[in-house]
Amino acid sequence: MFEFEILKKSKKSRARAGLLKTAHGVIETPAMVPVATQGAIKTLTAEQVKAAGSHILICNTYHLHLRPGEKVIKSAGGLHKFMNWRAPLMTDSGGFQVFSLGFGKDLGVSKIIKGEIKRSIGRNEQPKSLVITDKGVTFRSHLDGKKIFLDPKESIRIQRDLGADIIFAFDECPPPHADRYYVRESVERTHRWAKVCLKYRNSKQALYGIVQGGRFKDLRVESARFIGSLPFDGFGIGGELGGSVSAMKKMLAWVTDELPKDKPRHMLGTGHLQDIPAIIAAGADTFDSVVPTHFGRHGTAFTSSGRLNISNAKFISDKDSLDKKCGCDVCVNYSRSYISHLFRAREITGMQLLTMHNLYFFNKFVENIREKIKKGKF
Amino acid sequence: MFEFEILKKSKKSRARAGLLKTAHGVIETPAMVPVATQGAIKTLTAEQVKAAGSHILICNTYHLHLRPGEKVIKSAGGLHKFMNWRAPLMTDSGGFQVFSLGFGKDLGVSKIIKGEIKRSIGRNEQPKSLVITDKGVTFRSHLDGKKIFLDPKESIRIQRDLGADIIFAFDECPPPHADRYYVRESVERTHRWAKVCLKYRNSKQALYGIVQGGRFKDLRVESARFIGSLPFDGFGIGGELGGSVSAMKKMLAWVTDELPKDKPRHMLGTGHLQDIPAIIAAGADTFDSVVPTHFGRHGTAFTSSGRLNISNAKFISDKDSLDKKCGCDVCVNYSRSYISHLFRAREITGMQLLTMHNLYFFNKFVENIREKIKKGKF
Repeated sequence: MFEFEILKKSKKSRARAGLLKTAHGVIETPAMVPVATQGAIKTLTAEQVKAAGSHILICNTYHLHLRPGEKVIKSAGGLHKFMNWRAPLMTDSGGFQVFSLGFGKDLGVSKIIKGEIKRSIGRNEQPKSLVITDKGVTFRSHLDGKKIFLDPKESIRIQRDLGADIIFAFDECPPPHADRYYVRESVERTHRWAKVCLKYRNSKQALYGIVQGGRFKDLRVESARFIGSLPFDGFGIGGELGGSVSAMKKMLAWVTDELPKDKPRHMLGTGHLQDIPAIIAAGADTFDSVVPTHFGRHGTAFTSSGRLNISNAKFISDKDSLDKKCGCDVCVNYSRSYISHLFRAREITGMQLLTMHNLYFFNKFVENIREKIKKGKF
Repeated sequence: MFEFEILKKSKKSRARAGLLKTAHGVIETPAMVPVATQGAIKTLTAEQVKAAGSHILICNTYHLHLRPGEKVIKSAGGLHKFMNWRAPLMTDSGGFQVFSLGFGKDLGVSKIIKGEIKRSIGRNEQPKSLVITDKGVTFRSHLDGKKIFLDPKESIRIQRDLGADIIFAFDECPPPHADRYYVRESVERTHRWAKVCLKYRNSKQALYGIVQGGRFKDLRVESARFIGSLPFDGFGIGGELGGSVSAMKKMLAWVTDELPKDKPRHMLGTGHLQDIPAIIAAGADTFDSVVPTHFGRHGTAFTSSGRLNISNAKFISDKDSLDKKCGCDVCVNYSRSYISHLFRAREITGMQLLTMHNLYFFNKFVENIREKIKKGKF
């Protein structure tokens, strides 16, 4: 069972408020989707994630395929039961991890992103640990170096066994700064693979196609038109975002203008707080983000008056809550002083409290935008 | 406000069931007191600790004195408010940590305990990083090497600022395997210090005196008589336990037979599951234990059919709960398979789930004994 109902469209932007209906419940959109990479939101129980106001999570097909393996999860009755998450779930296709692990390791893409090396990645450049052909991708497990082959059919099979409500087509995610020739070849491959994924879909899971095209307008538009013409239940927007909010906003607009208006759109792997209004304004209904959880584990609290580095000495005697305007369990019960102490004393409970607060804060942030859209005020 | 009411005494043993009444609530005894060393049960929030059935915690004066310092905690409104624990709290005197850190480091006591070195610690042996005189102890912080002086007056002052319901007198905890001459001198010092602690007591906190005397019957009896004759609100039993359950049982009996019958007794720093019935049978009303939390973080689950090493490969596809007979949130909602996966994938959530379960399991274990005592069946 999968339905998307649009309740209200913004007049001033591409934003819309809607309902995403799945067999495991209905979620209101726009919504942030926290990332439960290995089947858990790091440092939290499922109960705590729910209490923080999250209603949908995304898990990582690549990681779960390697460990514990989809066989274990299928035999447990699927991912929902396995991880005690009785609400909607997504799984990504595994493509992003395969490519990012390969390119990050062998071609130093992380250095290119950071600006330490200035160059593009050319069409014939391939990381050593990754062999990409039209058939699929051969790569090595980051856990034990074992050779693994993934292709569209295999990705859909794994995702079927995992059993999420929404799954994604297997795409090639080209490295950021890939040149036009590289991206063109890659987009064409992603398009061929999209059709294979549709062939192996099943009626129990919604399947989202993925639009690629990097930072090139013509390729993005072409990809959105092609993927948008296929009978997917929704659409993911992946790949390079452009490096700035305005570039991302433009890129998203190229794509959403071409996609079917009545189907849901998911923005893959983004969600810095300051980008969220732009993501929603450009017409994304959901987006997955590691920001609240990742920053929480590393001592950053998001608040209505900006970020706090909670380990900072000035917080050790600060009796206020993290955010006076926040109504989360953490802000009601704990002080900056205590959480600062926990971080300085390297107590895991500190990471937990910040993760809970950050999730709640991001969820509220998105909820406020949602309410504004509904009232025609966004 | 502090009262101890004995509801029922066992006829076959020294065990009793009672109520410990403090300004922050009443707890039923016998009770296990989990250890929140730095003001948090590791990996859990206060809400999760309560949900696991714990009603009283003990914090560590030495650790909290060093970080964040009692000044911060006092200004936060005391330890209860600081750590969001609105139920009874204990703090130890700091003595144990001072001595164990010094002896462990400089005299290799840990090797003596493990049997790697066979010898006693003599009267004139002192660790380099620790100077013990009749006045008090000078030692170095394990965090930054700063010199710190602690004496009975200072320990009571720090504990007053921390603000727990039950505090302990500052004692000297001699190293295990200390010889008779060493222990005799040390016991006498502890007795002198006990009187100083009473001088600085306050009416808001219950003060427990500590019985020492190592493995020597005459010294234990002497210490119990002396400390028992002083107007403490309750009594701690500290120091060497004898190395076996039967030795510990004997030692405890020497002591509890000498202590006032109407006052509560706390067994310091013990609580392996198999020892708990003996501890209670010997007449301890409370005891603090790191066992459920420490083992939980390291992957051991306690169950009605024995211990599980949850990382073991056989659990990865085991769909049962940790313990079929357990009604805790973890056993109701999560499988061995999932928790095993979390440990293998190094997810903190796994440590959290095992800690919750183990606390619940130990609390239930003690509760069962308590109910048996009440029914005259222990």
